[in-house]
Amino acid sequence: MSTHDDGPSKAAPQVSDLTIENITQNAKLVNSETANARLKFLMDKLIDHLHDYIRETRLTTEEWTETIRFLTSSGQICNDVRQEFILLSDILGASVLIDALNNPKPPNATESTVLGPFYTEDAADVANGESIASPNKGEICLVLATVKNTKGEPIEGARIDVWETDGNGLYDNQYEHREKPDMRGRLTSNKQGEFYFKCVKPVSYAVPTDGPVGGLLKALHRCAYRPAHIHFRLSVPNSDYDDLVTALYINGDPYITSDAVFGVKKNLIVDANKVNDIALAKMYEVNEQDWLIRYDFVMTTKKETQELL
Amino acid sequence: MSTHDDGPSKAAPQVSDLTIENITQNAKLVNSETANARLKFLMDKLIDHLHDYIRETRLTTEEWTETIRFLTSSGQICNDVRQEFILLSDILGASVLIDALNNPKPPNATESTVLGPFYTEDAADVANGESIASPNKGEICLVLATVKNTKGEPIEGARIDVWETDGNGLYDNQYEHREKPDMRGRLTSNKQGEFYFKCVKPVSYAVPTDGPVGGLLKALHRCAYRPAHIHFRLSVPNSDYDDLVTALYINGDPYITSDAVFGVKKNLIVDANKVNDIALAKMYEVNEQDWLIRYDFVMTTKKETQELL
Repeated sequence: MSTHDDGPSKAAPQVSDLTIENITQNAKLVNSETANARLKFLMDKLIDHLHDYIRETRLTTEEWTETIRFLTSSGQICNDVRQEFILLSDILGASVLIDALNNPKPPNATESTVLGPFYTEDAADVANGESIASPNKGEICLVLATVKNTKGEPIEGARIDVWETDGNGLYDNQYEHREKPDMRGRLTSNKQGEFYFKCVKPVSYAVPTDGPVGGLLKALHRCAYRPAHIHFRLSVPNSDYDDLVTALYINGDPYITSDAVFGVKKNLIVDANKVNDIALAKMYEVNEQDWLIRYDFVMTTKKETQELL
Repeated sequence: MSTHDDGPSKAAPQVSDLTIENITQNAKLVNSETANARLKFLMDKLIDHLHDYIRETRLTTEEWTETIRFLTSSGQICNDVRQEFILLSDILGASVLIDALNNPKPPNATESTVLGPFYTEDAADVANGESIASPNKGEICLVLATVKNTKGEPIEGARIDVWETDGNGLYDNQYEHREKPDMRGRLTSNKQGEFYFKCVKPVSYAVPTDGPVGGLLKALHRCAYRPAHIHFRLSVPNSDYDDLVTALYINGDPYITSDAVFGVKKNLIVDANKVNDIALAKMYEVNEQDWLIRYDFVMTTKKETQELL
């Protein structure tokens, strides 16, 4: 029963003369008229923690005013290719925590990690062996990968979205004039569960620091950099396999242990070495001086995830 | 020492392979390089509560995505005369809690309450006896008030900002074409601590419900109305008196116990009765059928507040 237009509900709790001591209880009571038990629960916990935070910190009016200003400008800097609240969630460790809670993995499976704000739907289909990047976007890197299940069986027909920055550390959609997708592509695994492509050797880069979150990182003297990585999103259409949102991080990157968004997991760290093999170079049409990354992805079924939840 | 441009700090904690169990501790460690102890403390508590909230509710990825969307659209609907995050703070009980923590009052003083988002700096000076509203904005109401200190001594020269809605429940700055301030004015108390003016008899009104916060109130089946009230901001220039941000609420209003923003305090509820007194009506140039509100404000000194903090 909505109380919007009909005056206050007779059943609604009386809320006046609220104090530091009784405001929390009462602010929860007024949410009790919804039939949505999950929403009620989420609001209850939100009010508990928000009020406890305010009381524990004895938050000042000025600090709250500054917080409101921060939130407002965070919303206002968002656009089609920039999501400041995702960045805020990332640098507070919330994104990786929510990912971990929602995507538990058995020990031998590839771990998931943060999606980040730069995924787009419009990546072009790329055949095995092709490059996901247009020419001269950075150092060339060959990726040789497989997709298997936790029993070690190859998965054929997995769709693999790949996206990364160019050699300047910028995604295609961070440039002002983006004519078509670049440094991203959609591959399909073959009968042996293999997929392979050329791309730009990823580089470390700073998250956007010209907005409110950048100001916060600066005030905290925090590292704004992410170590070099390539994003992957794997899914198997019409199957029981869980989608896998993950990334591979390059061993030896100076920021590998200080990722601004906490996305690195040991399970996802790979070596990038020179190809150094004339036969391999010939087979995949790269040079011996180009880079090579190998990785074997292990996907889990929805049933396996369910058992861990 | 900023780590923005120089690579990660040697002293910075190593943060990789973070799990549901160790993310909170690590997300706090990376904030430890700031010299601003208060900021560090606020971030620590924020991360503790945010992470605990996520763990306790086992927040889903979809719910977090929806939250990010809510925050983004809240920022984007804000403009010069609309502040959705203040409204959000208000309906969560945060505003009134922060006000109570920052503005404790001894028992005989007038309590403070939420400022709300509709205060403006540009109210015109109004002499005692004049109206703060242009003609035909609603039912006429005479306010007879005094300002005293906690010893009962009149305070001369207090500046009193007053603002309220018109009879339609809208502030002047909620209308598209606002030529000059209306339903607002700035008064000065006389030697006896008195100030008096005519205004519109306030009416109850719904907070803006066409934005994200309105959607949340609707989903919660919550009352979106505020009871009829007049806002006051009292200050005494070059004195030891604390500014007093408060409001008077009209006894008998159907929403007096269900204020959507929890602002009502018993101390601030006043009767609005007909003038019903020919001599009084004549003295203040109103009609016997007009409305009358009386209130005696009691301001505290900074010293008195300090003793309660």
